Amino acid sequence: MSGNSFGKLFTVSTFGESHGPAIGCVIDGCPPGLALSEADIQPELDRRKPGTSRHVTQRQEPDAVQILSGVYEGVTTGTPIALLIRNEDQRSKDYGNIVDSFRPGHADYTYWHKYGVRDPRGGGRSSARLTAPVVGAAAIAKKWLKEKHGTEFLGCMSQLGEIEVPFQDWGHVGANPFFAATGDAALIARMETYMDDLRKAGDSIGARIDVVARNVPVGLGQPIYDKLDADIAYAMMGINAVKGIEIGAGFRSVAQRGSEHGDELTPQGFVGNNAGGILGGISTGQDITVSIAIKPTSSIRTPRRSIDKDGNPVTVETFGRHDPCVGIRATPIAEAMLALVLMDHALMHRAQCGDVSVRTPDIARAGR
Amino acid sequence: MSGNSFGKLFTVSTFGESHGPAIGCVIDGCPPGLALSEADIQPELDRRKPGTSRHVTQRQEPDAVQILSGVYEGVTTGTPIALLIRNEDQRSKDYGNIVDSFRPGHADYTYWHKYGVRDPRGGGRSSARLTAPVVGAAAIAKKWLKEKHGTEFLGCMSQLGEIEVPFQDWGHVGANPFFAATGDAALIARMETYMDDLRKAGDSIGARIDVVARNVPVGLGQPIYDKLDADIAYAMMGINAVKGIEIGAGFRSVAQRGSEHGDELTPQGFVGNNAGGILGGISTGQDITVSIAIKPTSSIRTPRRSIDKDGNPVTVETFGRHDPCVGIRATPIAEAMLALVLMDHALMHRAQCGDVSVRTPDIARAGR
Amino acid sequence: MSGNSFGKLFTVSTFGESHGPAIGCVIDGCPPGLALSEADIQPELDRRKPGTSRHVTQRQEPDAVQILSGVYEGVTTGTPIALLIRNEDQRSKDYGNIVDSFRPGHADYTYWHKYGVRDPRGGGRSSARLTAPVVGAAAIAKKWLKEKHGTEFLGCMSQLGEIEVPFQDWGHVGANPFFAATGDAALIARMETYMDDLRKAGDSIGARIDVVARNVPVGLGQPIYDKLDADIAYAMMGINAVKGIEIGAGFRSVAQRGSEHGDELTPQGFVGNNAGGILGGISTGQDITVSIAIKPTSSIRTPRRSIDKDGNPVTVETFGRHDPCVGIRATPIAEAMLALVLMDHALMHRAQCGDVSVRTPDIARAGR
Amino acid sequence: MSGNSFGKLFTVSTFGESHGPAIGCVIDGCPPGLALSEADIQPELDRRKPGTSRHVTQRQEPDAVQILSGVYEGVTTGTPIALLIRNEDQRSKDYGNIVDSFRPGHADYTYWHKYGVRDPRGGGRSSARLTAPVVGAAAIAKKWLKEKHGTEFLGCMSQLGEIEVPFQDWGHVGANPFFAATGDAALIARMETYMDDLRKAGDSIGARIDVVARNVPVGLGQPIYDKLDADIAYAMMGINAVKGIEIGAGFRSVAQRGSEHGDELTPQGFVGNNAGGILGGISTGQDITVSIAIKPTSSIRTPRRSIDKDGNPVTVETFGRHDPCVGIRATPIAEAMLALVLMDHALMHRAQCGDVSVRTPDIARAGR
Repeated sequence: MSGNSFGKLFTVSTFGESHGPAIGCVIDGCPPGLALSEADIQPELDRRKPGTSRHVTQRQEPDAVQILSGVYEGVTTGTPIALLIRNEDQRSKDYGNIVDSFRPGHADYTYWHKYGVRDPRGGGRSSARLTAPVVGAAAIAKKWLKEKHGTEFLGCMSQLGEIEVPFQDWGHVGANPFFAATGDAALIARMETYMDDLRKAGDSIGARIDVVARNVPVGLGQPIYDKLDADIAYAMMGINAVKGIEIGAGFRSVAQRGSEHGDELTPQGFVGNNAGGILGGISTGQDITVSIAIKPTSSIRTPRRSIDKDGNPVTVETFGRHDPCVGIRATPIAEAMLALVLMDHALMHRAQCGDVSVRTPDIARAGR
Repeated sequence: MSGNSFGKLFTVSTFGESHGPAIGCVIDGCPPGLALSEADIQPELDRRKPGTSRHVTQRQEPDAVQILSGVYEGVTTGTPIALLIRNEDQRSKDYGNIVDSFRPGHADYTYWHKYGVRDPRGGGRSSARLTAPVVGAAAIAKKWLKEKHGTEFLGCMSQLGEIEVPFQDWGHVGANPFFAATGDAALIARMETYMDDLRKAGDSIGARIDVVARNVPVGLGQPIYDKLDADIAYAMMGINAVKGIEIGAGFRSVAQRGSEHGDELTPQGFVGNNAGGILGGISTGQDITVSIAIKPTSSIRTPRRSIDKDGNPVTVETFGRHDPCVGIRATPIAEAMLALVLMDHALMHRAQCGDVSVRTPDIARAGR
Repeated sequence: MSGNSFGKLFTVSTFGESHGPAIGCVIDGCPPGLALSEADIQPELDRRKPGTSRHVTQRQEPDAVQILSGVYEGVTTGTPIALLIRNEDQRSKDYGNIVDSFRPGHADYTYWHKYGVRDPRGGGRSSARLTAPVVGAAAIAKKWLKEKHGTEFLGCMSQLGEIEVPFQDWGHVGANPFFAATGDAALIARMETYMDDLRKAGDSIGARIDVVARNVPVGLGQPIYDKLDADIAYAMMGINAVKGIEIGAGFRSVAQRGSEHGDELTPQGFVGNNAGGILGGISTGQDITVSIAIKPTSSIRTPRRSIDKDGNPVTVETFGRHDPCVGIRATPIAEAMLALVLMDHALMHRAQCGDVSVRTPDIARAGR
Repeated sequence: MSGNSFGKLFTVSTFGESHGPAIGCVIDGCPPGLALSEADIQPELDRRKPGTSRHVTQRQEPDAVQILSGVYEGVTTGTPIALLIRNEDQRSKDYGNIVDSFRPGHADYTYWHKYGVRDPRGGGRSSARLTAPVVGAAAIAKKWLKEKHGTEFLGCMSQLGEIEVPFQDWGHVGANPFFAATGDAALIARMETYMDDLRKAGDSIGARIDVVARNVPVGLGQPIYDKLDADIAYAMMGINAVKGIEIGAGFRSVAQRGSEHGDELTPQGFVGNNAGGILGGISTGQDITVSIAIKPTSSIRTPRRSIDKDGNPVTVETFGRHDPCVGIRATPIAEAMLALVLMDHALMHRAQCGDVSVRTPDIARAGR
């Protein structure tokens, strides 16, 4: 209840700070009987880990996950699954200069005011490093959803600063350092140059990320408050640096007429997907489509005005190893959050309504 | 846990359907000692009630609220407060034609698939009518927040379809039927004509709503999942027809540089408010600024392709009394949801950190 | 979270005070598709209602329940079910003498100190009258459990003050005013005289109640904290005036050896039921057996020493209509709480483990 | 929600099995600013750890706790505190003989039926070893409650099998291997002999434990379901092997008259404490007194009838290292659970009612 657990029935409680001895989580509610080992989790952690290209933080972390409980002879037992990831490359000295002052746009200020104390090393608890345990937990959710319902998760960066990245094919996402769904080499080169220039300028930039869930059972969502889209919005807005979230047509809905927005149905399925796969807070069986806005990293070398704890004016320049575009590594994180929401709702749905797949119509899958 | 309660410590559990005998809610966790009567709640309900102009549904509901419990001799006792609102103008016959088929863009389809049964009268549980109890509950939250922290809530429509409504002054909001913060009579007239044309065409339109909380204590928010912005996103996306949500700079953050986005601090306060009053999921003490996208009403007279329960193709035309722009009455609802989130977080914060006002700095209020 | 909701997935949120306009509850999470009307609920309310014999309070309440939502054409829709019971016989004047002083053994003292304000009419929120909505909600749980799993609930008074009531047959319970499972007319007569004497003496007495659930699915319970017995203990201790709770052998376990206590298994089932149907916090499929101790009513005519709000010594004599043995009407309440716990766990179990009946062995039912 | 978290605002989520690599917990909601190190926690763990006398299991575990997060420079930061305890002395071979059959009175049977899979090594998740993380978490709660409210926790064994242990003085508890509050050397010797005989006989025995909280603030408890006594009952019944729980007069209440049971008040405080420090589910400020019944250990050498997974009859004799009276080490565990409940309610109370100490009257402390 104090904010560090995610999910009601597939509940992930995380712990740790950027530069403490370890980070991790306890996952409560995983169904028993799922084959599981570290090998199911590590690949997802590797997708988000730092140090994989020159465009992200150069912190070197193997992010090797260890399962401490909940699995016996390679199978989940229905008891809590604890994941442990040791922090290995903590250079706390990098942060000495921001211990007593607040970076503009950073959680420094609010953590200090809320708690009266804060761990300044690497942003402490507010660090994006804390998305690692969630990605680990989501790997388990993804595996269960895939086996039970065939559900799959996909994500890509669709905009980097001013540079829009038109969608070509999901197959390209793993072939470039930006999670871009494009095979346009010139566009990728432009993004590389853009990032190099930013890094030289000591500045940072925002990004837009799109994520999609495919083969979603119809009927997930608990209106009228724990709607599926409401919980997705909660999950996405909870990711570090996210400032906006859209489902389906999103803000384009504002200027749409009802005769344009409402996706028609035919015996072959939905025509269009302005709904983003959710109506009345419940999944339609179509693809769930989500888009998020990620703000630029607040820790930059560019000098900025700020104050210290006593309210005196200071100039802040942040050195150290920071992602110049925190959005770059956000794609697997956004997928993870979407997977955790669907997992939780799959369990919630069968609690109230019994097994979910019974009424799933084929036609629901016909629309995009 | 089944989705019909909102909030963890100031918990509002609602009940009712559009055309049942009554709607209402139970509010658990209200602090004792607050002076309260129906007169504190009714004005908020009156702001959102139907039938107030020709641009909204013509259903005639007094929406008279009755307090059934939790108040003794005009003061809250700390026990649950139940609010009851009788439904009086239910013309169920209006809905006979959509009992067996699904309106495109409507919750008909998903409710039926989720539960295997649905109340078709007026949309049943999925009706926007169910926002009334929440607005009632929020009136109590608003009163407590105002008395305890001086917090105030404001909202307006900033876009109606293609028509943008530039912000002039909050004082105009109550003086036109659109909750528009403008005194531009020509613009209001244009909106009136726009709505009249839509109604004649049997179509509907989307809208954008902005809401603001002022005089917010610094320190509200429970990272790293129950962040203040995450819970706001959850609350807003849970409102009927919402498809997008922004905090502060929102989607503009995508193309912003860190040196532009991060709000600088001076001894006089923040410079700018791209953060929308929230950093790291915790309130900064600045205004909290939220913007939401509302899709066009799905119940329209324009004929649309759909299917019936057996999967056969049908044409659906929806008659009856529907808001042609559900966004028009959404402003007080969005304010209400924001108030409920802040109330819940105010209680959550003092649970963990003690009384909230101790560390609130004056400087936090200096920024916008 | 503020204490007025019961259950996690079949969640009952109650409201109301003894002498307010109404009491009731909102039930969230009821599975859809259950046939339901007031006629399913009223008989359970009638079993606990006041005024049915001279041994209980003479307050005259029809306790007529109205379903306000969640049911359409006689079937639950999966949306919240609200129950409303009007208070009709509130003689608030009866309580005038205890407004400013505290009855020994009563919640007067603690409510006043906790909230700084209290509703003194009939005990306000602390009144046993508030068990009525729970009994109503449990009628729904009982019906679902009966239809789904064949589960049944039985209860009886096994001790009234010093008078032990040896169990003979459940069939007797409805045939006397004490819920005694005995056909021994002399014993019943002795109980009648005992109560008459107490009433004349202006005093009250405690009781022991036994409740049993039969045909319980094996596997219910969420260790290691939300164990089935832990939640039963919570539910029972939450009933007004309960001071002790036992499962199975209860306090007799203290002097038992392991070779005596542990119920052996044979291919025909368990031999004995010291476990009370629960091992490791999970149901075994045997009968669940629970026993509770109920203290004597604190509102008595006998003069007692106390203090007023200012700490001055006073003598308190309570007139008005009070149950001289609150235990008499406790049997249907204890059954109700047990039913609510099992209902919640049945849903919880199928959330995590799928449909509950798959692994239920016949042998589990063979033991008592 | 899946049963492995304890507490709503001071939430302890545990993980681990008896013979896995580690056990531990995540504590969410600890107030910031509390001085904390392993040295505050280890002594409590040492009180319950195995191998301290010949009357308990001979498993050798240092139970050395490590704080992984939530503390910076010796002070809690308000973020989750993770505790890790490595399992070091796992002799899994000891359990080979009970992998496919069920010990009478043990959770073997129900875990297997619930989950369809179970970790048989040392009882897996159902082992009393899992009380260690809770004792660790409670050490933090105890420290905060002591500093904030002066609250203290005491416990003792009051009965071992047939042997009653009359209370003499809390000072004796640490001076004998039974947590007995007696300085009667002959009685202790009798208990030693009693246990030696049992061990030779390959049998086990039950026990009764009493725990007390002193200097409890008045006003804790969230009626009408999350009553303080209801949550204590839940906590105690959730401890391994507990079958009964009493508050104050407990089952003696059954034969008490109202004029005897209700504790009178004088300007000097309460006269007597039949209430056990709780009225209407809210603390009175008196000592909270709790008593629990613990059943005999189910793992014994005495041969017993049982069945295997296929339902065939087998004889089970359990070898290995088991506590012949699991009650012996239960005293610190019961204290821990009581501390966790009070901690949670202290936070809950100040969420709704503000700081707790304001209305605490001196007179409340005058009673026992």
